Amino acid sequence: MDGYAVRFSDTFGASETNPKQLRLGEQAIPVNTGDPIPEGFNAVIMIEDVNIIRTQNGVPKKSQDSLGYNTEHRTKDTPSLTLPPQGGGQGWGGEYIEIIKPLTPWQHVRTIGEDIVSTELILPENHRIRPVDIGAMLASGILDVMVRRRPKVVIIPTGTEVVEPGSDLKKGNIIEYNSRILAGLVNQWGGESIRFRIVPDDYDELKKAILEAYELGDMVVVNAGASAGSKDFSSAAISDLGEVILHGINIRPGKPLILGWLKDKPVLGIPGYPVSAYITFNLFARPIIYKWQGINVERPDILRARLSRQVASALGQEEFIRVKVGKVGENIIATPISRGAGVLMSLVRADGIVRVPAMSEGLGAGTEVDVEMLRAKEDIENTIVCIGSHDNCIDLLSNSLKKRYPGLSLSSAHVGSMAGLIAIKRGEAHIAGTHLLDEETGQYNITFIKRLLPEKRIVLVNLVYREQGLLVPKGNPKNIKSFGDLARDDVTFINRQSGAGTRLLTDKHLKELGIDPRNVKGYDREEYTHMAVASAVLNGVADTGLAILAASKALGLDFIPVAKERYDIVIPKEFYGSEMLQCLLQIIREDAEFRELVLSLGGYDITDMGKVIYED
Amino acid sequence: MDGYAVRFSDTFGASETNPKQLRLGEQAIPVNTGDPIPEGFNAVIMIEDVNIIRTQNGVPKKSQDSLGYNTEHRTKDTPSLTLPPQGGGQGWGGEYIEIIKPLTPWQHVRTIGEDIVSTELILPENHRIRPVDIGAMLASGILDVMVRRRPKVVIIPTGTEVVEPGSDLKKGNIIEYNSRILAGLVNQWGGESIRFRIVPDDYDELKKAILEAYELGDMVVVNAGASAGSKDFSSAAISDLGEVILHGINIRPGKPLILGWLKDKPVLGIPGYPVSAYITFNLFARPIIYKWQGINVERPDILRARLSRQVASALGQEEFIRVKVGKVGENIIATPISRGAGVLMSLVRADGIVRVPAMSEGLGAGTEVDVEMLRAKEDIENTIVCIGSHDNCIDLLSNSLKKRYPGLSLSSAHVGSMAGLIAIKRGEAHIAGTHLLDEETGQYNITFIKRLLPEKRIVLVNLVYREQGLLVPKGNPKNIKSFGDLARDDVTFINRQSGAGTRLLTDKHLKELGIDPRNVKGYDREEYTHMAVASAVLNGVADTGLAILAASKALGLDFIPVAKERYDIVIPKEFYGSEMLQCLLQIIREDAEFRELVLSLGGYDITDMGKVIYED
Repeated sequence: MDGYAVRFSDTFGASETNPKQLRLGEQAIPVNTGDPIPEGFNAVIMIEDVNIIRTQNGVPKKSQDSLGYNTEHRTKDTPSLTLPPQGGGQGWGGEYIEIIKPLTPWQHVRTIGEDIVSTELILPENHRIRPVDIGAMLASGILDVMVRRRPKVVIIPTGTEVVEPGSDLKKGNIIEYNSRILAGLVNQWGGESIRFRIVPDDYDELKKAILEAYELGDMVVVNAGASAGSKDFSSAAISDLGEVILHGINIRPGKPLILGWLKDKPVLGIPGYPVSAYITFNLFARPIIYKWQGINVERPDILRARLSRQVASALGQEEFIRVKVGKVGENIIATPISRGAGVLMSLVRADGIVRVPAMSEGLGAGTEVDVEMLRAKEDIENTIVCIGSHDNCIDLLSNSLKKRYPGLSLSSAHVGSMAGLIAIKRGEAHIAGTHLLDEETGQYNITFIKRLLPEKRIVLVNLVYREQGLLVPKGNPKNIKSFGDLARDDVTFINRQSGAGTRLLTDKHLKELGIDPRNVKGYDREEYTHMAVASAVLNGVADTGLAILAASKALGLDFIPVAKERYDIVIPKEFYGSEMLQCLLQIIREDAEFRELVLSLGGYDITDMGKVIYED
Repeated sequence: MDGYAVRFSDTFGASETNPKQLRLGEQAIPVNTGDPIPEGFNAVIMIEDVNIIRTQNGVPKKSQDSLGYNTEHRTKDTPSLTLPPQGGGQGWGGEYIEIIKPLTPWQHVRTIGEDIVSTELILPENHRIRPVDIGAMLASGILDVMVRRRPKVVIIPTGTEVVEPGSDLKKGNIIEYNSRILAGLVNQWGGESIRFRIVPDDYDELKKAILEAYELGDMVVVNAGASAGSKDFSSAAISDLGEVILHGINIRPGKPLILGWLKDKPVLGIPGYPVSAYITFNLFARPIIYKWQGINVERPDILRARLSRQVASALGQEEFIRVKVGKVGENIIATPISRGAGVLMSLVRADGIVRVPAMSEGLGAGTEVDVEMLRAKEDIENTIVCIGSHDNCIDLLSNSLKKRYPGLSLSSAHVGSMAGLIAIKRGEAHIAGTHLLDEETGQYNITFIKRLLPEKRIVLVNLVYREQGLLVPKGNPKNIKSFGDLARDDVTFINRQSGAGTRLLTDKHLKELGIDPRNVKGYDREEYTHMAVASAVLNGVADTGLAILAASKALGLDFIPVAKERYDIVIPKEFYGSEMLQCLLQIIREDAEFRELVLSLGGYDITDMGKVIYED
């Protein structure tokens, strides 16, 4: 306490009617918070509780502020005030403090040892040191503390075809990035990662590398070469140098894991597919790295959610399904995403993981599941779930939203216009992008909304008008001019999934031309996005496909215009007024940068961007 | 997939009864996972699904393992096998693969763009990069990414009495550790901390320091000098150089906070008491540091708990109460700990914080409260709650438990033997340390258990026998010999709280000697632990006090033996068999290191350590 050190016996009997005056420097010594109590004194009176009495020519003069508090020592607004010297009261002769209540012994005096006394336990072993712990140790005079060193994990990327990021890519090359993911995880878990050079698929070189890595760290991780392909040496090399404890586990992805032992150190063979690598590294490397640090692996946050669609799973294998999680109204929905172990983006996009037990053949749509969260639960609550038709502008919108409102996210799933409307119907999405042409009326979207969502009150907001057309390789080598060419024997088409607005557009044109889809080569091969169609054309998988101009421009393809269509956003009224959606609409309606970026993609008309097209 | 690239049209009509043979090198090309598909091929058959037929002298010869699978390319156990050259089939002339089912186009072929296509959004702005994100960026050819720099926070410790840790301490010196706590928090929050030199209580020097700090970082933090004491210049200095927005807020601890502005940068005056500093820094610096990084402050984990005792709070101030949280059976209990803003250990020991709203005068015992957790909820579940008598061995036990079982903790509150039994009665503790002497029978503990806990089934386990005695300063300057001396006018005693076993022992001796407690100077001054009593004697607050030999030895005091007593642990049967308590009992019963440490404290007899004394 800032105030005056006094002897409590001097304060006996003080009261408002009978104030006591204590002589400064003798009976009362000014002290500040943290000062030691002067010898012989045993209580402190707060500065707010005294009046200072200054005797000028023997006449006492009180100084008080309007609240009756002493103001003499308040320096916050009076920095130029000359302060009294401390501890002795020299120069303060003839001055008193006046008190109006008695003190108790040791009042406002903290005893030494109140906080911590010699030999008391400050922190137990195996405690992870936090900032406050550092404070407590320093306060106790502890300047050094033995800590566990960070475990060193050496990660060996392997593969003749594998090259460093930034290399000139040749056909068949694969950019090596797994080791950077694993290294990042090691660091995040408190370890120290050492990334080894890339080792080609050569048995002797791999053995040499493992031995070298053994000397460098506490654990060796070989990535990959763990599956049973023709160039997978890892298991053989480990058992040759040490011992393979286990090769292959019944999980998916991650089956070809190797756990081995080289003299006194663990050696892990981590599968090559990035998702397999991530999951097995979490399951098997993390507990070891934690154990060395004397800590337990934290349980992941679990969110109870309802599966939006069924998941099939092989009996006998525990399966790790990546899911997007959305909170729409009171519904918490988990939507499984791509199951390919090679699809790294499935991890980047995942909000969590659902485990399907080995003894299950899958989970039906609507099943309640426990999601092991990869994102914070509150992020999920601040995420707008957009399910429906794909358009490149949605990516831009997602970015602009997070740029302007870091607390908000837009999560989009590309399932086609029809599936988007169904998601709205089921309460699984806040918004849906849609461009469904009613052939009879020539009207976009509204007929479909009325038919599919009669029970919902909807606001339909325009995002863009956009151009659809046939994409062909640069120079149009097969000389494709219109949908009529799809019937040609030498032309392979790439289609969109059924329910997509673009698929309806294709079917409408084929029908008008009287072309039987069975005569269109490639009609059965479906992609889910405009970019995937563009990619198929670019890579020669198909000669042409229907997509938007922006996708064509993105990959430098030629474009044969087919239609201009309206792409709208369907918003149930129950969500329309929410803060989250108002932020999104504000960007659609006002953000100049967003509009510019949309225009720069090409093929977009933003005349009606943000306008309410329909409302019921 | 590891297998063979084929043309799907070559596989038409294959079946078990009508297998098809494809010529290696022409119709089938060996490929491994990740290889690009050779030009003109459009499907891959898995290695497990083919038989290799080797023609020797024109006679086909199948090779299969016992499951009927081809084994030729399995190298995991045969690393010395010479592998076929890849992609051309040279040297493989005259060999075939046999397939028994047709393929579909592009079966087991992943299309380019399945993962991510040019111009697609990988990560939005304001996204905090995780290891998988690094992988996704590298996979997409992104080698550079613009990131926000870490905000720099300059922390200025102030105070003439304040010295660096490790300095020779003079009377009145305070070790400067606040800045290290604040710096640790800045780093934890993603910022970069710059610790400024200690600035003495000199107005001009402080102003100079603030200006210098302004140049070094994005935010200046002055610690402390924010309260209204005689040497608190911070507010004046900040308003002199820039602008004070706010000085003082209605929270406790943390009242004298300053928020200011110097040109374009925020300047914070953070109070000097460590708990006040911690709380205000969390409330006011953290959001700024996060905002600069484009992220929101995470909501703390909330645990609903029941207050074990009442908390009084001043009306008009929001109060931040540190609590220990324990899960005992199904009860989750929050126990308030020391409220002194200067008691740093209250933060170190706290499991969470309870906010008492400004418009409340306090919370009653038993109130359900939301605890903002500082530790993981699962740590709480793995914590043994020990409430009762204090003994230095409990600290050792706590350490040994965490050393041997890093996932477990022992949390102890020192409230005295009686209060410990009451905590057991109320289901608020797993175990209680107790040493209660029944004056009539001369028996320890059992009578009290029977009387206070008739409804509980209890196991009583001995921890130690220990010596109690009067502590006096080295050399015994007042020549104290026994309890009889407490009646002397020149002797000041320091007492233990009522309900403590040691207090009962004191009262028993005074009664036997016929001394009226009112004639014992200092009888009213109570401490809660043996170490606090020892500290009071060491520091001259009292001339003597009753405590255990270990406390006396810890602070180098002289010791006048009074009694040898049994210190037991009370364990309700419902918890006795739990894994957690069995781990603890194992240490008590078997851990040689723990026993050695106990003996090294002095004054302990471990003959019966771990023995069951009584069971009902």
